Amino acid sequence: MGSFEVTILGASGGPDGGATQCFMVRPMGCRGLRSICVDGGAGFGEISQILARSKDSCKSELLESFYANDFEPAGQFFDDKASISVGFPQCMIGSLEHALEKQNTFTKAMEIYMGVKEYYITHAHLDHIGAMVLNSPLACDANNEDGKLIYALPFTLQAIEKHIFNDVIWPDLLHCGSNRLKLSRLTDGIPHVCTVFPQWDIIPFKVHHGFSASIVDKRVYSTVYLFSDRTTKQALLVCGDLEPDSASDGEPLLEKAWEYIAKRVTRGNLRGIIIECSSSASTPKHELYGHMSPAYLVGQLSRLREMYGDPNALAGLNVLVTHVKTIISEKDPRLVILQELREAALQERLDVRFSMAVQGYTFSF
Amino acid sequence: MGSFEVTILGASGGPDGGATQCFMVRPMGCRGLRSICVDGGAGFGEISQILARSKDSCKSELLESFYANDFEPAGQFFDDKASISVGFPQCMIGSLEHALEKQNTFTKAMEIYMGVKEYYITHAHLDHIGAMVLNSPLACDANNEDGKLIYALPFTLQAIEKHIFNDVIWPDLLHCGSNRLKLSRLTDGIPHVCTVFPQWDIIPFKVHHGFSASIVDKRVYSTVYLFSDRTTKQALLVCGDLEPDSASDGEPLLEKAWEYIAKRVTRGNLRGIIIECSSSASTPKHELYGHMSPAYLVGQLSRLREMYGDPNALAGLNVLVTHVKTIISEKDPRLVILQELREAALQERLDVRFSMAVQGYTFSF
Repeated sequence: MGSFEVTILGASGGPDGGATQCFMVRPMGCRGLRSICVDGGAGFGEISQILARSKDSCKSELLESFYANDFEPAGQFFDDKASISVGFPQCMIGSLEHALEKQNTFTKAMEIYMGVKEYYITHAHLDHIGAMVLNSPLACDANNEDGKLIYALPFTLQAIEKHIFNDVIWPDLLHCGSNRLKLSRLTDGIPHVCTVFPQWDIIPFKVHHGFSASIVDKRVYSTVYLFSDRTTKQALLVCGDLEPDSASDGEPLLEKAWEYIAKRVTRGNLRGIIIECSSSASTPKHELYGHMSPAYLVGQLSRLREMYGDPNALAGLNVLVTHVKTIISEKDPRLVILQELREAALQERLDVRFSMAVQGYTFSF
Repeated sequence: MGSFEVTILGASGGPDGGATQCFMVRPMGCRGLRSICVDGGAGFGEISQILARSKDSCKSELLESFYANDFEPAGQFFDDKASISVGFPQCMIGSLEHALEKQNTFTKAMEIYMGVKEYYITHAHLDHIGAMVLNSPLACDANNEDGKLIYALPFTLQAIEKHIFNDVIWPDLLHCGSNRLKLSRLTDGIPHVCTVFPQWDIIPFKVHHGFSASIVDKRVYSTVYLFSDRTTKQALLVCGDLEPDSASDGEPLLEKAWEYIAKRVTRGNLRGIIIECSSSASTPKHELYGHMSPAYLVGQLSRLREMYGDPNALAGLNVLVTHVKTIISEKDPRLVILQELREAALQERLDVRFSMAVQGYTFSF
């Protein structure tokens, strides 16, 4: 029995501009509609679409692909042993139907959106915050008594406050008097007790995300979040964009996250890692722009295993891959990367289970 | 025979975060894939979706609604006499199929996206630029020799340069050395000769768009663009968000645009107006936040007619309504607003034809 249910509202790595990163995270089997989201690249619109197309069956579903076929069977994108369901978790839909049986899709979607009480933002790049911003007038609605909190490390909060909610790019809903949308600062490496789900500690780690495009040697950072359930002792790592420390000769940052996990999370209690792999193995390193490749990702998983000091430390670990970039390709690059990851892991004798994070599915960890 | 073909890549007024304003504008019947876009709230992703779902029939199509029904028949959203087709214009699809018969949807979408040579941005609010920004790495691709130009009035360009392409919210692709994405400044009220379609003058007019959310009396501005074909003498007005000058006791701005049109565009040569109407008649004025209501919109059309000094000056004019906001409602607010507009126009004896701008349709003007 796992601890975490993650519904993928968006997982695209752009640049097509589809639903980008937003993962709704809840304790397994939790009743009611309360949730938190890691990143806000998707939101209310995607909730509506997922509700409208949700069906009972799972792997027989067809997914939007637009490569070899416009739609591909979903099963190809998932590990056979991964625990996956279509749409929102059943316990959530149950809460919804009880209250709102006759309501239309947008009304139901609004209930689910209003249930998102906290965002944990990895970094302020537009594909990780866009929908959160566009949806924000709803958060300031008079009916939303609780409001919403935006958590992040200081560098991310500063960017959001200065460049987004500034009455130029978007109405300044942080300082408009409604008091329903607030920023809240986290500290690198320090556990934060989640208000929505108090059994969770959420620990942010600053990580590298390449360099500035226009200023030489100016580094860009992102954040990974470790969710740690104090009751079950189980943990889930949720990443945004990132690269290995070594990719840019950076100070050890991701290394510290691995150290923390290997030290604090007992082998087997690490239930899953949600992590990006933007580009395929054929992409030159200088075109990764602060992102992961299959070699980098398998390398980092090997590094974590090494820190556990046990060749079987990650056996059976579910690794959910996100943020694959849209490119010109005959085959869906998500399927290309999945195959490359599995092959690279086999070579490293790394017995993990790779699945692709696909919008509209719930993964149990 | 009209002069303009407009394909709606996005027309949502948020805050659901669906495909927001982006109108692809081309001369009627133009071969090839070259185009310009007014605003960039939708883009490559929406082009892909429109290509994938394009069919031959038109008004039998079902549209995503998520209100009374998840999908509604398209015909309800359009005036009976409006000239409408599903998907991209046939002459454009013809150019595409000639070159790329066997290519997949993303490859075709990339060709269409690469054909967008210029953006004309109305203002820098995120719902009018988001997809343009997310797609921008493609614009800087080595294969995109021409690059893309972003045109706007200075207040909009400054916002985009300072707050978006700054290596914080998005990689600074304006100053990264690729030279493929550039800003280009327009002047209020001064015709700009369109490089892509040299028969067009494009004239920007600064307009009011309410006030800052946090700073008292700080005004927010937007832009409307008049497309004027020097060959046919026909014209099309394309607006972004706006409010009447009187709504905020502002200086005459929209009034100047109406004056210009009534003076320079012969009655009958004004082929259409694409304009927002965000909220229904039941919305209190103080909750319009710089947007149009049915009463405001019909009032402004009456004002334009008055300037022509001819009660039949706008007879048969196609008015395409955009930017309707998603709200909790039994009936799709787009259908509510369409009905309110028609009733208000009838009262004013204003014989215009209202249709709703719906994503994935091409309107001929």
